[in-house]
Amino acid sequence: MDYEKYINVVEDFPKKGISFKDISPLLKNPEAFKACIDEMAAIAEKYHPDIICGPESRAFLFGAALAYKMGIGFVMARKGGKLPGVIIKTTYQLEYATATLEVPAGSFDKGMRVLLIDDLMATGGTFNALKGLIEMTGATPVACLTLINLKDLDGAKNVDLPCEAILDL
Amino acid sequence: MDYEKYINVVEDFPKKGISFKDISPLLKNPEAFKACIDEMAAIAEKYHPDIICGPESRAFLFGAALAYKMGIGFVMARKGGKLPGVIIKTTYQLEYATATLEVPAGSFDKGMRVLLIDDLMATGGTFNALKGLIEMTGATPVACLTLINLKDLDGAKNVDLPCEAILDL
Repeated sequence: MDYEKYINVVEDFPKKGISFKDISPLLKNPEAFKACIDEMAAIAEKYHPDIICGPESRAFLFGAALAYKMGIGFVMARKGGKLPGVIIKTTYQLEYATATLEVPAGSFDKGMRVLLIDDLMATGGTFNALKGLIEMTGATPVACLTLINLKDLDGAKNVDLPCEAILDL
Repeated sequence: MDYEKYINVVEDFPKKGISFKDISPLLKNPEAFKACIDEMAAIAEKYHPDIICGPESRAFLFGAALAYKMGIGFVMARKGGKLPGVIIKTTYQLEYATATLEVPAGSFDKGMRVLLIDDLMATGGTFNALKGLIEMTGATPVACLTLINLKDLDGAKNVDLPCEAILDL
């Protein structure tokens, strides 16, 4: 599958200097989306995950479909303030701001093998934050998986986990 | 499947008077999530949709897994300002605020049958906005499908489409 033709690259969005990768055409195309999820599953199986976790909101697309395909569960890592009850939380630095990710306490059993998912690997900052969050719960992050890896940024060097992607851009 | 036991009901969240339905336990449980998506597919098939559309962000979970299962595409209806290029947009009233939903222009072919999805049907305001947005593109909304219907609010009476849910709460 030539995934690249289903990614719409938009320069200077959402701000000058950013080359935005719009995944809308891939989601709209049944064959491309199915091939992507099936390929993600083949990669994920190498790591024997017990559960998948990904950050709001585009990771939900790949995480939920992959969880369904693999017959395992999915944990939403949500932005701050959206989850009720006892939560575990991390705040991390973006280029010009801070961001927060939260999971419900009790999302993972101790030692559970957790696959981290997102649509895109940039600098690895979000994955690093998510890895720390999962470790706080006593579970074990096993790998990061994305549709797109921004190869010029080489984010994998900043994350102490195996990092896999379907497509280098 | 007794879905109700996988929904965590939290009173007075995110604010006093709101009874929040937390779907985290359902997503975490592989059997419950699989049964939910399979049941959604059986309902959806009656409407012969060509594509699925749902609003950011929890609809992405159900919409993407269902699209994968049914072998059709998914269109993200995103919050304002997150999509590049030419977009079609609607602004609608929430209880104490306004909200915006956007889809990329060209998301749907003319006459395409679109299934609307979300995790929860409350007053129907979001579905009504989404229905209007899809009609602006020349496509045809065919039905609304949710995991949960808040039966006391009877949101279906406010939406001029068939409305189906897996669970009345």
